[in-house]
Amino acid sequence: MSMRTKRWVVGVDLGGTNIVVGLLPMEGGEVLGLRMRPTDSHRGAKFVVDRIIEMVEQSIAEVLSMHGGRRDDIAGIGIGSPGPLDRKAGVVINTPNLGWRNFPLRDLVANAVNLPATLDNDANCATYGEWWLGAAKGVDTVVGLTLGTGIGGGIVLDGRIYHGVSDVAGEIGHMTIDSTGRRCKCGNYGCLEAYASGPAIALRAVEGIEAGVETVLSDMVGGRLEDITAATVYEGVVAGDEYATEVMKDTAKFLGAGVANIINVLNPEMVVISGGVTRAGDYLFAPLRAEVRRRSFRAAEERCAIVPGELPGTAGVVGAAAVFKKERYGRV
Amino acid sequence: MSMRTKRWVVGVDLGGTNIVVGLLPMEGGEVLGLRMRPTDSHRGAKFVVDRIIEMVEQSIAEVLSMHGGRRDDIAGIGIGSPGPLDRKAGVVINTPNLGWRNFPLRDLVANAVNLPATLDNDANCATYGEWWLGAAKGVDTVVGLTLGTGIGGGIVLDGRIYHGVSDVAGEIGHMTIDSTGRRCKCGNYGCLEAYASGPAIALRAVEGIEAGVETVLSDMVGGRLEDITAATVYEGVVAGDEYATEVMKDTAKFLGAGVANIINVLNPEMVVISGGVTRAGDYLFAPLRAEVRRRSFRAAEERCAIVPGELPGTAGVVGAAAVFKKERYGRV
Repeated sequence: MSMRTKRWVVGVDLGGTNIVVGLLPMEGGEVLGLRMRPTDSHRGAKFVVDRIIEMVEQSIAEVLSMHGGRRDDIAGIGIGSPGPLDRKAGVVINTPNLGWRNFPLRDLVANAVNLPATLDNDANCATYGEWWLGAAKGVDTVVGLTLGTGIGGGIVLDGRIYHGVSDVAGEIGHMTIDSTGRRCKCGNYGCLEAYASGPAIALRAVEGIEAGVETVLSDMVGGRLEDITAATVYEGVVAGDEYATEVMKDTAKFLGAGVANIINVLNPEMVVISGGVTRAGDYLFAPLRAEVRRRSFRAAEERCAIVPGELPGTAGVVGAAAVFKKERYGRV
Repeated sequence: MSMRTKRWVVGVDLGGTNIVVGLLPMEGGEVLGLRMRPTDSHRGAKFVVDRIIEMVEQSIAEVLSMHGGRRDDIAGIGIGSPGPLDRKAGVVINTPNLGWRNFPLRDLVANAVNLPATLDNDANCATYGEWWLGAAKGVDTVVGLTLGTGIGGGIVLDGRIYHGVSDVAGEIGHMTIDSTGRRCKCGNYGCLEAYASGPAIALRAVEGIEAGVETVLSDMVGGRLEDITAATVYEGVVAGDEYATEVMKDTAKFLGAGVANIINVLNPEMVVISGGVTRAGDYLFAPLRAEVRRRSFRAAEERCAIVPGELPGTAGVVGAAAVFKKERYGRV
């Protein structure tokens, strides 16, 4: 290993839809050489890995040429991926969204670019990113929730990602909040994700429209109800639509039950909520905080800030880089 | 401080119904000088504290006289109490069951018996007791649930009680499993405790009887339905009563939703279930494990043992002593 001080860490955030790559200065700061491209997982695992490698090389080249420096200044690569994973082996055990099974992602990337690499869960990375450089900077105990196609969760205790005994910890999206409730795509009934993920919000909106409520939402998509997304609902809220506001409030209530559970069990200093739906701002956060207050222990709730993430789009990259730093140097 | 090696630690388990006190050898072992007396909290806080002090003195005297030794051999006292607590200050902040507010329990006991003392939550202590000398001996990451009048929870991570930022962590009994469900005495709706605590089990049984189901349960209490308890249901199960078995299965399902949530979020090595209802054995544990399997991630569930506690009646005393040992000497 060179004695030259390493200046940058690469972060890779592999998602079902997009791959995001960037470089972080070792001491933290802005993401440099940021790149985002579609994952195109239908083209196969090799294609996806090649795309990651290409993006990593491009990011590195851009940063080295703009900031001066040489390849030896790059410490390594942190990779965030959907799970479940075997972190130690660097293997993706099974990812329905990508269609992978026992796929040695970490070493394929590491060997191709000739840099050491680490692998961790994407939701863990997003939470760790908010902890390192975002909303939870300086906070010891943080729980992160990312609302998207699914609901990802991450737990940071005393400045470390809490992984549990088999790297599954933090699956907050699949917490039962209604044991006889809606079927979730995981096979269980009444998961938080079945109520508050993007598709679940859209589905609840469509159900109401089909039942005959008056709303601008159907006009917003030209009557094609299948085009309604969580973003449509958010736009309806901003446009002052009563029904959209109701759907958002319901979302906040379901989410509030989940967040209250987390607060009662883990008693964290902060819960960071990320994802597109947080653009709804106080339309989401005001009823969310009220529901949490109603459902959790006061001594826990009054010590816990519930805030939106501050690194939209890059939390995963930042956190993946932080994981590399932590595993390589013992501290972030 | 004397240089003489301390031989024993006192454990105090203060509950809403009973006070249990005993001594543990420093290196672990059987509980010695075990005493149990009613709390009689209606007689006031001073009465309760005096009773604790008296019981502690009696236990110490018994052990010293039987095993030889002198007062100086006693290291100190670990106290477990219902919460919420301020552990550092040794103060019980608010305990509805005892009617106390901001009560400096730890120092009142410590000063009266002239020994150092620690204070922790009763459910934390029960879990820590199972971790030190019971079902979870040698297991790093354990979650404990005690089913009684309420449902207490405790979390042990890496051999330490996890307290959270304001000592509230582990309130698993008040996890929402049915967000539109039964009202809990905490004010929330759909808490696990509102379904699977002793009184909740009895209430569900009575509701069925009032709705006209056929069962031996009403005969077992001479028609006085208000006398039905969880123990009655358990006896009905053993007697082969179909309805009682159904109530027990429902209990297992509700409990399973809560345990699955814990497994998905904390991914522990073991969940220890304690309390009278565990006497139902496989009538409870078989459907419980099946429900957990149905509701949790396989990679988490297959690594988690769900077992009954092995220290019925004394887990709280053992764990309170372990807390003292941990705080005083840094290890148990």
